[in-house]
This record gives sequence, structure tokens and C-alpha cells, in this order.
Amino acid sequence: MNKKIRAAIIGANGYAGAEVVRLLYSHPSAEPAVVTSRAHAGKPVSDVICGMPDKMIFKDADAPEIRECDVAFVALPQTVGASLVGELIDRGVKVIDLSADYRFDDVSLYERTYGVTHPRPDLSKHAVYGLCEHNRKAIASAKLVANPGCYVTSALLPLLPLAKKGLISDVIIDAKSGTSGAGRKSDEAYSFCTVDESFRAYGVFSHRHAPEISEKLGCGVLFTPHLLPIKRGILSTIYFKVKDRDAALSALKTHYDGENFVKYSDALPQISQAAYTNNCVFSARFDGEYGIIVSVIDNLLKGAAGQAVQNMNIMFGLDEAAGLPRVAPV
Amino acid sequence: MNKKIRAAIIGANGYAGAEVVRLLYSHPSAEPAVVTSRAHAGKPVSDVICGMPDKMIFKDADAPEIRECDVAFVALPQTVGASLVGELIDRGVKVIDLSADYRFDDVSLYERTYGVTHPRPDLSKHAVYGLCEHNRKAIASAKLVANPGCYVTSALLPLLPLAKKGLISDVIIDAKSGTSGAGRKSDEAYSFCTVDESFRAYGVFSHRHAPEISEKLGCGVLFTPHLLPIKRGILSTIYFKVKDRDAALSALKTHYDGENFVKYSDALPQISQAAYTNNCVFSARFDGEYGIIVSVIDNLLKGAAGQAVQNMNIMFGLDEAAGLPRVAPV
Amino acid sequence: MNKKIRAAIIGANGYAGAEVVRLLYSHPSAEPAVVTSRAHAGKPVSDVICGMPDKMIFKDADAPEIRECDVAFVALPQTVGASLVGELIDRGVKVIDLSADYRFDDVSLYERTYGVTHPRPDLSKHAVYGLCEHNRKAIASAKLVANPGCYVTSALLPLLPLAKKGLISDVIIDAKSGTSGAGRKSDEAYSFCTVDESFRAYGVFSHRHAPEISEKLGCGVLFTPHLLPIKRGILSTIYFKVKDRDAALSALKTHYDGENFVKYSDALPQISQAAYTNNCVFSARFDGEYGIIVSVIDNLLKGAAGQAVQNMNIMFGLDEAAGLPRVAPV
Amino acid sequence: MNKKIRAAIIGANGYAGAEVVRLLYSHPSAEPAVVTSRAHAGKPVSDVICGMPDKMIFKDADAPEIRECDVAFVALPQTVGASLVGELIDRGVKVIDLSADYRFDDVSLYERTYGVTHPRPDLSKHAVYGLCEHNRKAIASAKLVANPGCYVTSALLPLLPLAKKGLISDVIIDAKSGTSGAGRKSDEAYSFCTVDESFRAYGVFSHRHAPEISEKLGCGVLFTPHLLPIKRGILSTIYFKVKDRDAALSALKTHYDGENFVKYSDALPQISQAAYTNNCVFSARFDGEYGIIVSVIDNLLKGAAGQAVQNMNIMFGLDEAAGLPRVAPV
Repeated sequence: MNKKIRAAIIGANGYAGAEVVRLLYSHPSAEPAVVTSRAHAGKPVSDVICGMPDKMIFKDADAPEIRECDVAFVALPQTVGASLVGELIDRGVKVIDLSADYRFDDVSLYERTYGVTHPRPDLSKHAVYGLCEHNRKAIASAKLVANPGCYVTSALLPLLPLAKKGLISDVIIDAKSGTSGAGRKSDEAYSFCTVDESFRAYGVFSHRHAPEISEKLGCGVLFTPHLLPIKRGILSTIYFKVKDRDAALSALKTHYDGENFVKYSDALPQISQAAYTNNCVFSARFDGEYGIIVSVIDNLLKGAAGQAVQNMNIMFGLDEAAGLPRVAPV
Repeated sequence: MNKKIRAAIIGANGYAGAEVVRLLYSHPSAEPAVVTSRAHAGKPVSDVICGMPDKMIFKDADAPEIRECDVAFVALPQTVGASLVGELIDRGVKVIDLSADYRFDDVSLYERTYGVTHPRPDLSKHAVYGLCEHNRKAIASAKLVANPGCYVTSALLPLLPLAKKGLISDVIIDAKSGTSGAGRKSDEAYSFCTVDESFRAYGVFSHRHAPEISEKLGCGVLFTPHLLPIKRGILSTIYFKVKDRDAALSALKTHYDGENFVKYSDALPQISQAAYTNNCVFSARFDGEYGIIVSVIDNLLKGAAGQAVQNMNIMFGLDEAAGLPRVAPV
Repeated sequence: MNKKIRAAIIGANGYAGAEVVRLLYSHPSAEPAVVTSRAHAGKPVSDVICGMPDKMIFKDADAPEIRECDVAFVALPQTVGASLVGELIDRGVKVIDLSADYRFDDVSLYERTYGVTHPRPDLSKHAVYGLCEHNRKAIASAKLVANPGCYVTSALLPLLPLAKKGLISDVIIDAKSGTSGAGRKSDEAYSFCTVDESFRAYGVFSHRHAPEISEKLGCGVLFTPHLLPIKRGILSTIYFKVKDRDAALSALKTHYDGENFVKYSDALPQISQAAYTNNCVFSARFDGEYGIIVSVIDNLLKGAAGQAVQNMNIMFGLDEAAGLPRVAPV
Repeated sequence: MNKKIRAAIIGANGYAGAEVVRLLYSHPSAEPAVVTSRAHAGKPVSDVICGMPDKMIFKDADAPEIRECDVAFVALPQTVGASLVGELIDRGVKVIDLSADYRFDDVSLYERTYGVTHPRPDLSKHAVYGLCEHNRKAIASAKLVANPGCYVTSALLPLLPLAKKGLISDVIIDAKSGTSGAGRKSDEAYSFCTVDESFRAYGVFSHRHAPEISEKLGCGVLFTPHLLPIKRGILSTIYFKVKDRDAALSALKTHYDGENFVKYSDALPQISQAAYTNNCVFSARFDGEYGIIVSVIDNLLKGAAGQAVQNMNIMFGLDEAAGLPRVAPV
């Protein structure tokens, strides 16, 4: 048996980083060799990620072992990991960045969107946007992959086949996400008593995933996110005007033929079909000039850690589906 | 002290009917004098509506006592109560019908929408549409009030002030409802394990509340309902093109000045602000030619039983807010 | 019409205080005249308690208006309000204290249990324990009522009729509470993603309600609380050895005859029967020498704010049930 | 690479059967070769188990292909599969039965407990009780393994090390299970609106898992199950009198040293630590003569499908942990 790919997970206290660790722990060809958390350095990883071996200990984010890994998953807040990414690439460590730092072609759009100055704008042009099903070839040879946003993934997968053919306009995305999308929080706004049995919109006209969707789609969109009282999953309801209904439906039904994780469904999907899997399932309905797509993913898997591992599989020439769940639990 | 208004609640096994009973039980000027349920006739009401006095017994829907009441709340499936309504009115019993039977001005639209033949189309022209804040005068003198649909109420309250001034077009309503909106169910699709930690759209381009909204608004709308994993509450996210932004915002902010239950909020509302109250709270945001309204109600109160009791209060000249909760619980 | 009782609610940002405000807002004979919160002083009460009139403003806890009220509900952390309580009583303001400060007959037990020094141990002997159904006469003439703990109420109501007759021993209380019992929190341990779809025990052999139960019951108990992924409600499963089964069952079935809020049920109760009401519902089963009682309340109503208002009703000679919900919502 | 073990899953429409299919789909050495459901025969498995390949079709329970499998997981209601089990064994197909049919040493106790006549009492003596960590050797050579009940597993794993040494008496098990434990249901009692935000006890003094626990433990127990408003997981709070506290704690801490899935934890565990894994985590506290254990599992994995696959791994000499999740998701 070949040696396993050694992966570092930087920022594994966050939900996305923790899910990368979990996926790699049962991956047939890779392993979570170095797991870091500033807050928990020196403590057992199992304190945060239940079921991990007790002897595995959180390292600090500047642990030298990271540099000896084959790949690093960087799951740090925007800008915090940007320079580390450069350092790792120089050392020959492939990087999959789960932050937004390298997602944008237009660095100034990134800076306006996130209200920051990019510490390493020079690297941006080398980064490959890691929407696996649309960018496989570039991902396969990339040193740096920018893992897409969760809402963005739920919207782009069904919309890109239509947008590329110029079939749609007037796109409105009404998206709903489970609360893990907000990250690990000590905040009354995300307390159980606030979120449970409630539901709310936020970031109306101002959410940071809107410019990412627009740049990748090549057209403006209205995007409104909402907070669901569930742990995991995104459902996006997408409204648009359609130019050629038959062509649109045909594109949606056939574009992902043969894909492992992206699937058109005749029935409207629900979040439980995608939760705890790396799948995106979507369906469409048309009426007159209007089309509606409903699309579901798990925000932490296809929307973050799962797509990141899928990117790793592509970068290392592995079976793209290795270590990634496809069957939804009860 | 004056004698209390004697109310019959027909179909009190359903969630909306049960909530009417609950509200009337603590109403200062009315009482649930006769409570019917075909399925539970002869059993204590407290078997279904916990906390009701043990000695109160469910009657059958044709119990003669109904005809001696001052008012009847008819909460039966479409068409089932339509003839009883006629009989009660003839007897001088005021009727508030919670079904869709008498909501439509255009009976043929009702028949197409619900796929039924209306048993008493003749009564339709006498029915008053019970959207309290917009129809007070007619309600006050009505013999028959058609209580609006839950989704409809959440959408019409913020939209009517704009539509009446011709300020909006291209209306898309993306609505999300708690599961009690589906009624009391023995159905795997509404089982805990199916609904919990999930979320889905349904009735895309085909929900029966769309024609009701369109008729009352005077223009077509796209309407997509979704099922939330919560018991109670609706949040509608409403997209539209706006003609005069300042006029629109002003209309939204001032139209309901002095109202008990309808309120513009600067902050985006969430469902927990309206749940277990008779309130509708909404807020708006504008960007370029687009406007977005977020509106919340409790589907069983302002969306059903609460509005029904508010209608009763108006019909009998009581304080319109009597017996209706305004302060949201924790 | 008589003038309404003017109530001050001190510490209305907390869940219990907020619920007192909500109950009094629709109380027929009392009103929330002064509402305080250190954190929110100067802001509208409706920012925290949705649906309250916008013009009502949070005062600070030392606002002079408090001293002109007829009654004060003190809902502050242990020891914080103890001196204020003394001051108010001296001024002739009746006090209902929702903290544990005045619940114990044995002040040193209180101090050991809560790890504090009691600021006003002298007042303790004047305090009346506000378990309404067991202490009505003393409450009616009390200046200071110590409102019982939530878990304590769920256990004492079914157990006291048995303990007073010496019918039980070896009492084990396995109690489960909704998350609002932990109070308003900005703490990852009470975040939605931590609590949802989970369940845990805490305070094993060490919870502060155990000594309160033991003191009032007159015997030691094993008490284990658990955290339920729901907002409101407590269910206590109580195991004991029974001396005379028939006498025990008879005591449970008849002790609360004629009570408004406490009821024996033949069927095992569930939390939804008590949530949003001031009711306690319990049932019992026996097998050989063992008995099991299942008891439910709403932790914020019968377990806190509801019982507090019930105490107020008794202290002012009102209908004991005034302003308190008895019928459970859907 | 060796040929994969071919498994039949009989009754895969149920939650436990569906989870066996899901686990085997990603198992490195086995595959779900035949998947049956009477209700869905002829339809794609992916209609029920989302993400399964579309071309896999449900067979009927008497499909001849079952007899050519290496192993069959029988997940049918009590008695329904008992004769099929005999037939399969005769054909040389190893059987793991997830029903209670073959769990009891004392067939008459089984018959009294389930109120049935056992169709094949003769096979009972050949069945091995599949509590993996306590019966490995017998399981390894068994033709028929009776997979333990979910509640039973959560209780026996921590209790057996104590009971075998005679360290405990007066055992009371207060157990709480997620709603999937009740199975796939079209029943108002398990509807979302009934279960959500509620909690209840059931089967007081009468649940069918009590005799199973007693038989395996060798002493009587009080057992009370409760229904949690979550999808998956069991937490059992276990009260007992302890004879030698140090010996008991030592037994709990060391008995499962080196085990993959069973672990003593110093901190009290919560359900989310075990959900979606095959783990059992427990902790203990002592005070005077009393001990309290808190134990968590996933009812569908270690409590059903996971333990069943673990049994298969043992029966076929595979790595016992193969294909079984150990790391809990966020």
C-alpha cells in the first residue's frame, strides 16, 4: 500500500476545518497529519472533534510540521492565513484555502467586499477557483485552490450551465442556510433560544457571497440569505427569466451526467437529501417566461470541507469521490 | 357585567379551530360555548386542547346548540362547511369562515384553484374578505366574513399599501411556513424524522394561495411556499421592482400608524417576534430599482385564529384587540 | 374600574423577568409600570420584549419610580437584589423575589449551596416560600415572597402530598429542562449548534435545586438535571419506594381537586401540555414497591414568572388565576 | 483485491435497514448486493435512501438472489423474518437479525414480552447475542447473530463490567431516545408538530427492552424510556447502589481499554458526541452509596445498523472497525 498523503488542517477549531479533519480521518489515501488551533494548541483534538484518537494533539498554526505536509487546508478568517498560504506554496506544499482570500479574479472587488486590504494580492492570479465540476483541469495542476463559498456553490452549480449558454436573466437567489454556516459562536444571536423555532433574513442587498456569485456567473444577481433553525444544509430557491425553456431544462438535466455528486432530480429536493453528503441536488420548474430552481447542498461538505477534499483528490490524481459520503443518513 | 358572546367553533380538532377555542377561553367578552369535532364528538375537549375544562365535551358538527350561538367560527375543509354557513346565516348566526370557500370575488377562480364545485356560490357575493386592517367597515356590518389565508395575510399586509398606489411590479413572494400550516397530520411527509433538520419548497407555480394573493392585490405574483422545521410562524421575503422608492418607504412606514397589530420595523424581523402573537411585523430594503420586504406573522394567529377573533371583535363592536396577544413570549 | 396594581419588574432582560412583563401587560388588574434592565436602560422595552409599546423605556435598577409601585418582581442574580429587597419592603412595596436568596429556611444551607454570603440574612425569616398551592395563607399576608425554583416546583407539587403523609422514600428525580432554564446566554455551550439535536446531563450530585427540594420535602433526594433541545418546559421523572400504594394514588388524585393549575392526569403527560401555560400536570404508575411519577410544567411560567404572578394575585386578593394562561397552544 | 462480501438487506425501508445499506455502500470489503422492501419492490432504492445509485432497485423479500449472498441483515418486524432466518442459515447464508426474535435465551420470556408465538424457537439456542465487545469469540463463529436492542446496548455496555463483578444493585435506567427509534411512521403521535418542542415518557414499567436488559445483566432493573425531539441518539442516565466505589470506577475506566468504539470519558458525554458514529461514550459519578452513569450512543448505529455491521466484520474476520464511523460530525 502506498504512503498516505499527509495533510495539515490549519484552523481546525472552526466547523469547516473540523469537518476536513473528520473526512480525512476515514479517507483511504490521506490522513490528517497536523491539526492546528491557536485556541486549543497543546490539547487533544478529541476535545473539539469527538472520536478522534486521544493521542492526537492540536498544534499551533506556525508549527514547523505543517511545512512537511503534502497539502494544507487553510481554514482561517479572511486575510489571517493569506501570507501563510504564500509561504507554504513556496515550500512546495499544495494549498486549499477555505477562506475568501483567493476566490476573486478581481482583487479590488474582494477588498471592497470584505473591507480589508489583501496581504498577498500577487498570489491571487495563481489561485484556481475550486468549483470542482467546472474547473477540473486547472485544479489538477494547481498549487493553490480557492475553495468556493457555501451559498455560492449552491447557486453556481445549477446556474452555470444556463448562464454559459446565455439562457437566463433577472436572477434572484433566495437562500436559506443551517446555523453552522455562521461558524462556532458564543453570541446570543446564535444561541439556541434565539434561533430555535425562529427564522430570519440577513445581509439583504449586502451579503459577501453576492459579488462572488456575480463574478463567477458573469452577471448581477439579487441574493438574500436566511438563517434556518437546523444545524446543516442550504436550500436555494432561484428565480429567473428564461429565454429558451427546452434548452434550459435540457442543460440542467444533462450537464452533470456522469458526475458523482451533482444531480438533477425530477422531484423537488429537500435539505435532508444532501445533509451529511457531498451531493448537490437540484430541480427546476418553468411557467411562462419564468423559471425556478431549487438546489440543496450540505453547507459544511459540498459547501466547504467536502468540496475541499474533492479538490485535494483532484490535485493528487486520486479517485475524485474518495473519502466523500454520497448516501444520506436517515 | 354583560353577557358574553356565545361562540361555536366548528371543526375544533384542526389546529386553527383549536386556537380559536384557546383564544376565546380567555377572551374578556366572548366564550367558546359549543365546540365541535366529528372525530371526537362525545369526548372531553381537553383530550385535544390541553387545559380546557374537563367537563366541556366535543359536540358533533350538526349539534342544534350551534344555531343558538351569536357567532360561529367554521374551520372545516374546503366545501365541507359551505352549506352549514348558509344555514347559520339564515338563522341569524354571524359566521367567520376559516376555509377558502368565500374568500374569492370570482367563484370560478375559487373552483379552478381548489378543483371543486362551490356548493353555495350564491353566498359568495355577501361574504366580506376579513383582512381586518383593510376592510374594517364592511366587516363591522357583515354576516359572513371569509378569513384570509395565512400566506396571503403575510404578503398582503405589506404589499397592499404599495399596490394601491401603483408603486410596484414584478412581485415575487418567497414564503416559509412552520409545519402547523399543513394541519394536523398522520403522514410520513410531516413526521418528525422527515421534517426536523430539513427544509423544502413545495407547490412551485401551483400553490392555492397564489390566486388569492393575485385577486386581492390586483396583479399577478410569483409565489413559492416552503416548509420550515418549526411549529408556528411565516416569514415572507418579497422581491419587487419599485417605481418611487421614497413614496414606497413612506407608505410602508405610515400606512399602519396607530394599528394594534401591524407594524413597520427598521430592523429586519424574525419569526419569533410574531409567534404566539396576533402581530404582523415587516421591514423593507431598497437598492436601485429593487425593493425587498421581509414580513412575519404567526400562521395560526394573525394567519388564522387570531385574525378570526379580531374579525369577531370588529363584527360585535368590541375593542378590536380584546383577547388577542401582542407581546411575544421568550 | 379600579386602578390597576402598579408593578415594577427589576431585571427584565432575563427570560423570567421578561415573561413577568408579558403576563402583566395583558393582566386585567395589574400593569408593568416600571421595567428595569441595567444593560438596556434608556432603550425601548420592545427591543427585548417584542410587541411591548414602543414608548415604554427600560429604567435602571435604582430608578426612584420603583419605590412608588405596589409590588416589585425582583429577577436578579443571587445576592444582587438582596439589599434592594429590604429597601423596598421598608418602603411598603411588596416583593416577589425570583432569585434563590430568600427560598431557604436555613440561610447557611443557602450560603453553602450558592457559595455566597447572604447580604441580608435577617430578612430570610420574614420571607414566605411561594409555592402557591401549599402556602396560600402565608402568601396572602406576606411582604416578601420567595418564588420557588423551576425544577423544584415540578418535583414538589406531586411529591409533597406523598411526603406529608410519609408514604415515600428513596426519591430519585431525573429532570429534563428546556434551554431557556439556563437564561439568556452568549456561550458556545448554549449555542444552537451545540444544543440542537443533542441532550446532556449536568450538575450530577451537585445541582443547586437539590438542597431546595430536600429542605422543602423534608428528606434527601437524588436529583439529576438534563438539558433538552427545546425552548421551554420541564419534565421530571420521579422514582421512589412507596409504602401504601392505594393511599399514595389517592393522595395524588385528590390533593389538588379544585385547583386551577395543578392536575392529576390518567395519561402520562408531555411537555407540550404545559408549555405556555401556568399548569402542572402529573401522572403516576406503580409496580411492586416502586412508584414513578411523571410531572410537567413550563419552566418560565409555573416554574418562574407564572407562579410569581399567581403569588401576586394571592397577595393582592385577586382571582388567583387572573392573567395566567391555562390552555396550551398547538 | 479480493471479492467483496455480498450482503442482502431485508427490510431496507425501515430506518435501521436503510442505515445498514448506507454503511455497506462505503464499506471497503462488503457491498449491499440485494436490498429488499415489500412496499417499494421494483422502485429505485434511491427513492428511499438518497444518494444510492439510481440503477439499484428494491427487490421483494423472497427474491432468490438473497440466497446467493454471503450474509443477510434481516430488519423485519418481530416474528415476520423468523422463518426466513432459518431458511437462509440452511442455505449457508450467515444472518444478522436486527429484530428481537433471537435475542432472548429464554424463548418464553421473549413470547411473553412481545405477546407473540415464536415461529422458530428451535433456532434460538443457536443464536449468538451480538453485543460485540462482550461476545466476540462466539460471534466470530456464529451462523446467526441476534443484534441487541438500542436502549439495551446503551445500558449494558457500561453496566456489564460492574454487574459481572457483583458491584451494583437497585438499578434504575432513565433512558431518552431520538425519534428515529420509533421507526418510520405515519402517525400523528410522531408528527413534527406533536414531537417538536415537547418530550414525554412512555412504556413506564412495561417497555420491551426491560426484560432484555434484565436477562443479559442477570438482575432486575427499572427502565423508563422517553422520546426526545431529535432525530438520532440515546442518552441513558443510570442510577444504582454501589458496593465498592473504587473497584467500580476502575472497572468502568479500564474494561474497554483498547476498544475502537466504547470509551470512558471523564467529562459527562452528550448525544452529539455519539450521533452519526458507532461509539458508546459513558462517564460515572459517585456520592455515598450511590452511583450515576451517563451513557450515549447513536440508536441507529451502535444501537442497530452500526453494531450489525460490526458483527458482520467479526463474523468474516475483517477489521472490526471497517466501514464504521468513529469521528462525530459538527
